[in-house]
Amino acid sequence: MDLLWNIVQEGYNSKENRKYETLFTLANGYKGLRGAFEFSKLGDRGNLIAGVFDKNTAQVTEIVNCQDPLPLNIYVENELIDLDICEVLSYRRNLNMKEGILEASFKVKTRKGRIVSISSERFLSRNNVHRWAAKYTILPVNFCGKVFVENMIDGTMTNSTLDPVNITKHFEVKKIVDLQPGIALESSTIDKGIKIIEGSYVTGIGESGNLLKERKYNQFGERVRELYQVFAEEGKEFTIYKFGATYTSRDTKGCLNTLLKEEINAFIYDGYEKEKIAHIKKWNTIWQDIDIKIEGDDEAQTGLRFNLFHLVASAYEGDEKVSIAAKALHGEGYKGHVFWDTETFMLPFFIYTRPEVARALLMYRYNTINGARKNASLNGFKGAQFPWESADEGIEVTPKWGEDYYGNPVRIWTGDIEYHINSDITFGIWEYYRTTEDKDFLVNYGLEMFLDTAKFWQSRVEYNKEKDRYEISRVIGPDEFHEHVDNNVYTNYLAKWSVKKSLELVQWIKEEDEVIFNKLCIKLGLNNKDLEAWENIQNKMYIPRSKDGMLIEQFEGYFNLKHYPITEHDENGMPIWPDDVRLDRLGETQLIKQADVIMLMLMLREEFDEDTRRENYRYYEKRTMHKSSLSPSMYSIMGLSVGDTQNAYRYFMKAIMTDLDDNQGNSELGLHAANTGGAWQSAVFGFGGLSVDKDQKLNLNPWLPKEWKGISFNINWRGSILTISVREKEIELSSTGDIELKVYGRDYNLAQDTSTIVKR
Amino acid sequence: MDLLWNIVQEGYNSKENRKYETLFTLANGYKGLRGAFEFSKLGDRGNLIAGVFDKNTAQVTEIVNCQDPLPLNIYVENELIDLDICEVLSYRRNLNMKEGILEASFKVKTRKGRIVSISSERFLSRNNVHRWAAKYTILPVNFCGKVFVENMIDGTMTNSTLDPVNITKHFEVKKIVDLQPGIALESSTIDKGIKIIEGSYVTGIGESGNLLKERKYNQFGERVRELYQVFAEEGKEFTIYKFGATYTSRDTKGCLNTLLKEEINAFIYDGYEKEKIAHIKKWNTIWQDIDIKIEGDDEAQTGLRFNLFHLVASAYEGDEKVSIAAKALHGEGYKGHVFWDTETFMLPFFIYTRPEVARALLMYRYNTINGARKNASLNGFKGAQFPWESADEGIEVTPKWGEDYYGNPVRIWTGDIEYHINSDITFGIWEYYRTTEDKDFLVNYGLEMFLDTAKFWQSRVEYNKEKDRYEISRVIGPDEFHEHVDNNVYTNYLAKWSVKKSLELVQWIKEEDEVIFNKLCIKLGLNNKDLEAWENIQNKMYIPRSKDGMLIEQFEGYFNLKHYPITEHDENGMPIWPDDVRLDRLGETQLIKQADVIMLMLMLREEFDEDTRRENYRYYEKRTMHKSSLSPSMYSIMGLSVGDTQNAYRYFMKAIMTDLDDNQGNSELGLHAANTGGAWQSAVFGFGGLSVDKDQKLNLNPWLPKEWKGISFNINWRGSILTISVREKEIELSSTGDIELKVYGRDYNLAQDTSTIVKR
Repeated sequence: MDLLWNIVQEGYNSKENRKYETLFTLANGYKGLRGAFEFSKLGDRGNLIAGVFDKNTAQVTEIVNCQDPLPLNIYVENELIDLDICEVLSYRRNLNMKEGILEASFKVKTRKGRIVSISSERFLSRNNVHRWAAKYTILPVNFCGKVFVENMIDGTMTNSTLDPVNITKHFEVKKIVDLQPGIALESSTIDKGIKIIEGSYVTGIGESGNLLKERKYNQFGERVRELYQVFAEEGKEFTIYKFGATYTSRDTKGCLNTLLKEEINAFIYDGYEKEKIAHIKKWNTIWQDIDIKIEGDDEAQTGLRFNLFHLVASAYEGDEKVSIAAKALHGEGYKGHVFWDTETFMLPFFIYTRPEVARALLMYRYNTINGARKNASLNGFKGAQFPWESADEGIEVTPKWGEDYYGNPVRIWTGDIEYHINSDITFGIWEYYRTTEDKDFLVNYGLEMFLDTAKFWQSRVEYNKEKDRYEISRVIGPDEFHEHVDNNVYTNYLAKWSVKKSLELVQWIKEEDEVIFNKLCIKLGLNNKDLEAWENIQNKMYIPRSKDGMLIEQFEGYFNLKHYPITEHDENGMPIWPDDVRLDRLGETQLIKQADVIMLMLMLREEFDEDTRRENYRYYEKRTMHKSSLSPSMYSIMGLSVGDTQNAYRYFMKAIMTDLDDNQGNSELGLHAANTGGAWQSAVFGFGGLSVDKDQKLNLNPWLPKEWKGISFNINWRGSILTISVREKEIELSSTGDIELKVYGRDYNLAQDTSTIVKR
Repeated sequence: MDLLWNIVQEGYNSKENRKYETLFTLANGYKGLRGAFEFSKLGDRGNLIAGVFDKNTAQVTEIVNCQDPLPLNIYVENELIDLDICEVLSYRRNLNMKEGILEASFKVKTRKGRIVSISSERFLSRNNVHRWAAKYTILPVNFCGKVFVENMIDGTMTNSTLDPVNITKHFEVKKIVDLQPGIALESSTIDKGIKIIEGSYVTGIGESGNLLKERKYNQFGERVRELYQVFAEEGKEFTIYKFGATYTSRDTKGCLNTLLKEEINAFIYDGYEKEKIAHIKKWNTIWQDIDIKIEGDDEAQTGLRFNLFHLVASAYEGDEKVSIAAKALHGEGYKGHVFWDTETFMLPFFIYTRPEVARALLMYRYNTINGARKNASLNGFKGAQFPWESADEGIEVTPKWGEDYYGNPVRIWTGDIEYHINSDITFGIWEYYRTTEDKDFLVNYGLEMFLDTAKFWQSRVEYNKEKDRYEISRVIGPDEFHEHVDNNVYTNYLAKWSVKKSLELVQWIKEEDEVIFNKLCIKLGLNNKDLEAWENIQNKMYIPRSKDGMLIEQFEGYFNLKHYPITEHDENGMPIWPDDVRLDRLGETQLIKQADVIMLMLMLREEFDEDTRRENYRYYEKRTMHKSSLSPSMYSIMGLSVGDTQNAYRYFMKAIMTDLDDNQGNSELGLHAANTGGAWQSAVFGFGGLSVDKDQKLNLNPWLPKEWKGISFNINWRGSILTISVREKEIELSSTGDIELKVYGRDYNLAQDTSTIVKR
């Protein structure tokens, strides 16, 4: 097994089941199937289908944990093969990231002494997202006898199994179908009646053909199963294939049952191996786009691939009404909600590697803009106010109440006042356009989002007459330790940027296509007075700074808060709370949760000179607790951009190992998806030193930590694939199209399909 | 803890859960709740209600595993207290047999390091069989915080969870009720629509009164729950009480829901402790009736009590339409069916200790006699043919197919031809009457069963004209290794006995009450010709014997079969299969499964002199494989009766440890109920040497194994309680009424309330 391409779990411990369910989740953008193992009942299974949301009795609308199509039970005579009941003689599972296949191999001894060896694999097809399949090869080591194969769909699933207060069942089982052979179960969500059908079919092949005999079909309440008998012979292995298919009423207006039957029949006709090969081929293409090769550091190589694998698995170009949740399709954490995490942390990866997916992610925002308009209207604002937490409609779905570090109930204000999401989205649109030059998107969708959020800002900012400036008071910035602050720089600066960019785009579209501009003005109710107001806002937006102008004050009054120097770090190099800090009064300190000013400077790097960035980096780095998985990777990039290389590798490794080491202690709830994007950014923007300058030109300033011999990756720059290989002494560049770029500040013109070597 | 009264499980191992579910089952005759632990999800939970049978898609009608009222989940913050997830720091469960309470005490550490100590108890009230309750005392060892208490009723239960082919759901969830507070779930069986309601209510008491806050009620498909929040403080323990109630439409014509609410309200009004005290008091009374004290042998003492505890728990006098299944109310093994096990092995215990229960058990047969008549009619016979396996109607419910020792399908013939059940029942009636002199029962119910089975025998026997004898060909006797044999002695002899006894009873009732006799003749269609036929049958029934008449031939031709001497024994002293025996051709050997001729001689001891018994014991003991748990205890009794003491103690210990040591390897399927009765018989009829002679006089011939200093017990003889204490040198006897009896062959007249000492 190639350890650079595999995440391996050696040895079974049921206490780790939930963590591995996340780590071993298979997803294809359409659906995520948590990596529960068929041969243990302990854990928190999950079948999440992108876009299937429901509220019912839950606190807020959340992603639905749908009926579970995974169960495949094997009984030797009457003994269930269950890792928690049998003696486990050997056990290994591994995520084959190269091919997108979850593999396993184990041997158990039943209580009656029967030894069985099973190897299995499972994939969610990337070739046809409605298909998934599994294969089980079973070897009766020391017995002959009846083996029962039970294929089941479990409709008893609920959400929030790990959260007793919030357990909710989001669907009713509506129809159970005997496909004769094969089984299907159709459910319907409570609020909107979204219908979901899961179906499956098993075959068994041995030396003399079909092995499956004496089919028995049963319905047990909300569960359906078919059971087959296999006569197993000692030492003769046999194989069971399971073909699964999924449809929802989001996909089609047709009859789900018919569609499912057709899909399964077609799948059987194609065969397991054919679909698997097509799936692997898709993954090959994906890896060509996204892979980053690190030489000389196997842990970093495998760990980084783990992040890229799950990030790319979490989205696809086929659905413009869904985006990537904070925990992706890997768990119910954060209720399947979409945060700024997507645009700020994950989107750059897609922009630079799979721009068609980036477009679909941005289209999700466009398709939920009516919800954003409702938010603005409900809150007394104009235009579109995108929600801090977003589900299927763009309506704000942030829970109103949560718990503090002591478990006390606290009002969650982010959904009310963490406004920066609006410019995070427009920044994402800009970054997408800058990189892809996708004018169609900008003109038809991006522009409307720019202008309607500018309208929102226009209604939200407050004019301080006395000081002749615009302010935004009582907000939460990226650093959520400080709530209800005035003039958070990140918020103000990006609002200003977004309004300014809107004005530029107005100029541009007027010239490009005035008809479109006029249509938009009518649609959004804009006129010259609004544009004048925007001009004023972008001119006079207040940005708090230190007296010398170098140090940016995170928000008004921040410099006056009490400074608690961070002096100690844990074994992972992460800060330890300074003594005497009260965790329920962090707002009174200068300690911050995560990159805030630094984040701004990373996004709008070209607007801050290196000295300013360095000064601010040094200042805030000492005050950042990194209590968000979004933070370390950003500090690593900024550190590298200002020549502070000492923490970069440590922060990078911390980022890529977040889930693999479960170093936030909650990986069981789902993937730290933003962090996976941060890991990519850290590699490409940090070590790769990729940035875009004021002239919209690509810059490369690579730096290699001592642990590495090289790093190489592809990026898609305006339709050309640029291959960058950074080695100890040189950088090799090649491109599928002509590209002008700067390396270490020097201009290079790369000609199509030629290789350029730059000495380091 | 008094180890003579407790079955203790020290240390947790999930692989033993199912076994302990049987060992720790609580039952009260009305209902059996398997001893699943609330704090593990692994196992095979069971809630069996006597008399609730259903077939649906199962092979045959079987006892229904009803909705499970047991779940009580405790979460510390969001961490479920689950022994399979947490680290188990200490663990003990014990069955307090004296009080009929299942107790537990354990300490766990959650993954987040919270340490919780919980002690719990549970009882199914013997005072009011509709009630059950549990108590949980929870100590947060090292934390303060929210604890969630989740009370649930689980309607997803199925039968045959361990038997993949036969998994069946026997009920539909019909109604889920929020009792506000409290929850209830009503189900209805598939075939007959028997309604079952389970309801429960929890309270929590701490220093400042009610602890339960923020009730949340939810329905998840077929499950219902209520969830409460408790704010737990470090080091301060608190207690949760759960009040449960059960009703079925078998109990009442009223509204189950109303009845349940009233029962729960009354239970809450009474309080937990009051019901517990009443329950314990009932158990005290029961133990006064049934206890057997063994001095000098703690293992035998505790083990024997285990058998008595579960046997007495499996029946009560309150329902004359149910009997005790082969696995009692302790598991689904043998599908809840009633076999000869009840009358032959268990009934004597009840006759001699709790005759009112014995009467109810026999009334079950009377109440199912119409089913028995249908069996006879379907099979072309007359009268009543009791079923080999009986459920709720007396219709034959033996499965037609099973598996041999190699797992091959074999036709099960017992339901067709194991006729001896009919005389096992009449023998039970006779034994009951002989001991209790309950004339009312005999006249109104017992007689009809005698006469109608005599009619069955009359139609079943075959007259061999050539040899001028009656024969019964193609039968199965107690030894099921030999099928389709002719003239099995056990069958023929007891048929003859039963017909003869019927004639005696006819004479007797004619004299006692001719009106009743005439009514019976009309009801059963009897006349003098039948009585003449019976006279012939009992005179001329063929009983195969050896030439000298001493050795009885188990069936015609048995002596000619191949003898495979048993030469080896396993570590428990049980026979090992002789070499070369083919397990699928046992019928061609002299090896027998269990006591057959010996069984007959035990039942009708007065008809066989000691030499005959000894000769047959010696002969068959060498040929008996004891492949039924019913066998060893019977051999121990017979051995003692013929002076062969060498195996008695070993057989006895084997019998009492059957489930405790799981020495048949299937205790998880339920109690070996017949064996528990055999254990009692072995103690009282074997070591106690109790028998009834031809003159219907009680005989005592006690013998003590060297391991014991004494044995004492009570028996109920015709309304008087006789207390027998056997000590090394003497026997002490006392009685609540005058009794004439023989001790070691000498006559004694015990006067009421005086003590008599007999030297040994």
